Amino acid sequence: MGITLAQAQTALQAAHQKAVDMNVKMNIAVVDAGANLVAFIRMDDAWLGSLDISIKKAKTARFFDMPTGAIGGLSQPGGPLFNIEHSNGGLITFPGGIPIKGRSGGVMGAIGVSGSTVEDDHAVAEAGVQALEGK
Amino acid sequence: MGITLAQAQTALQAAHQKAVDMNVKMNIAVVDAGANLVAFIRMDDAWLGSLDISIKKAKTARFFDMPTGAIGGLSQPGGPLFNIEHSNGGLITFPGGIPIKGRSGGVMGAIGVSGSTVEDDHAVAEAGVQALEGK
Amino acid sequence: MGITLAQAQTALQAAHQKAVDMNVKMNIAVVDAGANLVAFIRMDDAWLGSLDISIKKAKTARFFDMPTGAIGGLSQPGGPLFNIEHSNGGLITFPGGIPIKGRSGGVMGAIGVSGSTVEDDHAVAEAGVQALEGK
Amino acid sequence: MGITLAQAQTALQAAHQKAVDMNVKMNIAVVDAGANLVAFIRMDDAWLGSLDISIKKAKTARFFDMPTGAIGGLSQPGGPLFNIEHSNGGLITFPGGIPIKGRSGGVMGAIGVSGSTVEDDHAVAEAGVQALEGK
Repeated sequence: MGITLAQAQTALQAAHQKAVDMNVKMNIAVVDAGANLVAFIRMDDAWLGSLDISIKKAKTARFFDMPTGAIGGLSQPGGPLFNIEHSNGGLITFPGGIPIKGRSGGVMGAIGVSGSTVEDDHAVAEAGVQALEGK
Repeated sequence: MGITLAQAQTALQAAHQKAVDMNVKMNIAVVDAGANLVAFIRMDDAWLGSLDISIKKAKTARFFDMPTGAIGGLSQPGGPLFNIEHSNGGLITFPGGIPIKGRSGGVMGAIGVSGSTVEDDHAVAEAGVQALEGK
Repeated sequence: MGITLAQAQTALQAAHQKAVDMNVKMNIAVVDAGANLVAFIRMDDAWLGSLDISIKKAKTARFFDMPTGAIGGLSQPGGPLFNIEHSNGGLITFPGGIPIKGRSGGVMGAIGVSGSTVEDDHAVAEAGVQALEGK
Repeated sequence: MGITLAQAQTALQAAHQKAVDMNVKMNIAVVDAGANLVAFIRMDDAWLGSLDISIKKAKTARFFDMPTGAIGGLSQPGGPLFNIEHSNGGLITFPGGIPIKGRSGGVMGAIGVSGSTVEDDHAVAEAGVQALEGK
């Protein structure tokens, strides 16, 4: 099923540290290759509504094996995937979700972050990905 | 309720073969006249998020007896059916879903395909329809 | 993600043939290791309500890596898992769902069958499992 | 909203260690006073269906400020709370969920564990509670 708990925690801790460094309060979720939750944290005083969003971002990134923001570029009014967000029990298609690849290049899971601007969310998610893929 | 399992499998196999020929990885669903699933396949390594989308495309095509993309043209901001996607537990209104008609001209089911561009999705769905209606 | 489409279709065809031999009309679903649908068929005139049940049986069998009936033995009034069916969007815990193991012994998916008595459902599911595991 | 992330992680780690010591594979969830998820882990090869159950156990324990098994004693056929599991999007009322109290005695959250027998689930949850309340 791809990512192990130890790997998921490595990504989660790196993302958490990045959020502390940036002074933002995040919800951070990691899912496996089956898009099922492996690890999650909500930082103190992080937006409550971002809990569900962080999990949906992680799932969305794995559902289509691309960063969530890439999907959002296609789901705008007039775009080819308009309102794709209505599928899969609700997708989130703005930045903050990124697939995590294994050494063989296959997708083994994804991370989703929510709690600040979408730029901040993406940066924190990227820190989580780098902690694993950079190794 | 229209389409038989044998007919659904004929459509499914033709669509599957078309996807193989096009080198795309698809989720393919066929529903009957009651908009209930009759047959489904997910090709290896096809997007996981396309599972639900392919089924919703097939249902949407039967719900309104027209290709899904035709509905998407009406559901845009300012359009007459804006956000119709909120109905029926979630519609998908971009291309890839097509009704299947019987010899008498009545709709006996629909096929929905998801896994690539909407143009590819529609082409694969069309191959499924032609395998039945072309006979 | 475990089971391939080719493997799922082998299981599905064997189960379908068994249902034909038994003169019963079944819904048959196969899920992968992530409990996501890989292949499905509904035989002509099979109970419509069994569509969802067959998928839920397959998911339930993978969720807990045991035949669905084994869970039902524990979820009765007074039993240790009373009303576990309320989890995971709805479980089905009577017979008809069976995990499918790979050569290494790990669970690579599951099959769920619904459309007749639970004894018949289980027998048809077992035929699907045997077609893969017996090889 | 009660429990902090640091406290939730302390409980989670103690419960995780207990599970390792007992050689069981668990899903472990901690919710805050608002019954919203704060931290979660799924151990490698833990039952996939226990993901949702662990979260529902934690929520159920906080919803009623008592161990989940105590509610299950009241929700049996003929009991005063028969089928209370239908509320709140689905409750789990067998053992494995326990409220977490602060120094003042007020409930600040809850822990839910699922992945083995209900006795094991409860023991692992108890280890998490003790790590916090024992201090």
